[in-house]
Amino acid sequence: MIEPSRSQYVQIADLLRSRIQDGTYTPGALLPSEDRLAEELGVSRVTINRAVGLLRSSGDVRVRRGAGSVVRSLPRIRRDAQARYAARREGTGAGEVEVRKLNLKSRTDYRRIGKAETPADVAKTLEISQDAPSLLRSRVLYANDEPTQIADSYIPWEIAEGCESLMQPNAGPGGSYGRLEDLGHGPVRFEEEITVRMPTEPEQRTLDLEPLQPVFQIWHVAYTARNLPIAVTVHVMPGHVWTLHYAWDDKHSQGE
Amino acid sequence: MIEPSRSQYVQIADLLRSRIQDGTYTPGALLPSEDRLAEELGVSRVTINRAVGLLRSSGDVRVRRGAGSVVRSLPRIRRDAQARYAARREGTGAGEVEVRKLNLKSRTDYRRIGKAETPADVAKTLEISQDAPSLLRSRVLYANDEPTQIADSYIPWEIAEGCESLMQPNAGPGGSYGRLEDLGHGPVRFEEEITVRMPTEPEQRTLDLEPLQPVFQIWHVAYTARNLPIAVTVHVMPGHVWTLHYAWDDKHSQGE
Repeated sequence: MIEPSRSQYVQIADLLRSRIQDGTYTPGALLPSEDRLAEELGVSRVTINRAVGLLRSSGDVRVRRGAGSVVRSLPRIRRDAQARYAARREGTGAGEVEVRKLNLKSRTDYRRIGKAETPADVAKTLEISQDAPSLLRSRVLYANDEPTQIADSYIPWEIAEGCESLMQPNAGPGGSYGRLEDLGHGPVRFEEEITVRMPTEPEQRTLDLEPLQPVFQIWHVAYTARNLPIAVTVHVMPGHVWTLHYAWDDKHSQGE
Repeated sequence: MIEPSRSQYVQIADLLRSRIQDGTYTPGALLPSEDRLAEELGVSRVTINRAVGLLRSSGDVRVRRGAGSVVRSLPRIRRDAQARYAARREGTGAGEVEVRKLNLKSRTDYRRIGKAETPADVAKTLEISQDAPSLLRSRVLYANDEPTQIADSYIPWEIAEGCESLMQPNAGPGGSYGRLEDLGHGPVRFEEEITVRMPTEPEQRTLDLEPLQPVFQIWHVAYTARNLPIAVTVHVMPGHVWTLHYAWDDKHSQGE
C-alpha cells in the first residue's frame, strides 16, 4: 500500500522533527547539510531532500537562500476569535493582541487604503451590487519581522466614504469597527468561515511560503444589530503559525 | 525571487484547476494522461507531474492506483460547530448532520470502543492523572464512501465505566453527551482549538491522503456546568473536504 521510498523519507522527517523538539537542533540554527545528513543516516541525498521538503511544508524549518534550512523560531500564535474583537474596547488593535501576548514584536504594514472594486464573493456577502465599490484596507502583519497574516477588509464605500479616520492606517479608538459604531453601524455579531488551501504565488511571496505550505483562510463577516453585513475581512494566515480558538455555550443544553 | 520552473508548474496547475471549475474535466472523470497533457500544453512531463502533484495536495484530484488522476466528486462539507452539537437534541448524530444536508450518504465505522490509556495531552486537558484510563470511542466517518474524518473521543473511565450505553456504537438519544447528562455531567460549554498539519502515515491510509495533503485537527473539549472538562474529542479532517463555521455575539458591543 505504501511505497518503501515514501515510507523512508517520512520516517527521516519524523526523526529530524524529534531532534528539533528535543533541542538537538535549536530554534534559529541551520540544519546539517543534506550531504552530511545522508552520510550520518545512511540514506540517499534524494531521501534527505524529500524529508526536508516535508519539514518545510509543515513549517518546522524554513529556507534561508544560499545557506540551507533553518529551524523555525517563532512559537505558534493562538488566535482567540472572541477575545480579539472584544479587545478593541481596550484600545488594542485586534491583530496585535495575540502577538504581544507572546512577547513578540508586532508590526502592521498597510499596503493599501482606499476606494476599490468589490470582489464578487465579497459583494455577495455584503449584499451590495457587484458594481458598488468598497473601502479596501489591506495590510500585512508581522511578529518579530516574520509575516504572520494578510488581512483585507472591505466596507461598502457608500458607508465609509464620509469618514476620514477610516482612510488612515490608525482608524482611531476601537479601530475601524469603532468608526462604524460612530456611523450608526456598529458590529454586534461575527461569523467566520475557515478553509485551508495552498497559497497563491503572490501570497507565497508576501508570507514567505513554499508552494506546498498550507494557509488558513478566514472569511470574517461583521453584522450590525439590524443584521446588516457591514464589513468582510479575508485573513490569509500560514497554517504552521497559528492555532485558532473558539468557545461557546451550548444554547440547547438548558432544556428548551 | 521565483524560479521560472516553479512558476511554470504553478501556472499549469492553475490552468488545470480552471478546467475542472468550468467543467471541461468533470467530477469523477480521469484527467488526460501526463504524456498527453505535456504534448498539448508544450511543456515537459516533469512540469505536468509537479502540477498534478499540486492538484493532489489541494484535493482537486485524487489518485486512482493504476489508472491516473481522477477529478474529485465530493462537494465541500460545511461544519457548523454550534449547530452540530445542538442537533443532538433532535436525535441526530453530530457527525452526520452536515453530510446529510448535502444529500450525501453518511456512514460511521467504530474502530474501537473501550477502556484505553489516556494520551498525555488528553489527560492534561481532562485534569486527570496520566495513569488514569479513559473510555475511548474511536470512529471514522464517511460521505458517499469517501473518508471525511477520524474522531477519537475520550471520557474519564471513572465516569464512564458504569454506563453500558457508552460502550455501544449507538450510545442512545443525544449520543454520548446525552449519556453524560444522565450521569449528572452534561456538557454546557464547548471549546475548540484548530490547527492544520500534514497527516501521519496511519492517517494517510485511513483518510486516503497523500503525505502533503493538509488536515485540520480540531481539539474539542466539553465542559459541565461546574466547569469540569468531561470529554475530549480529537477530530482529524482532510483540509480540502471541509469549511468550518463559527458565529458569536460580540459580548462587548453593548457598552460596558
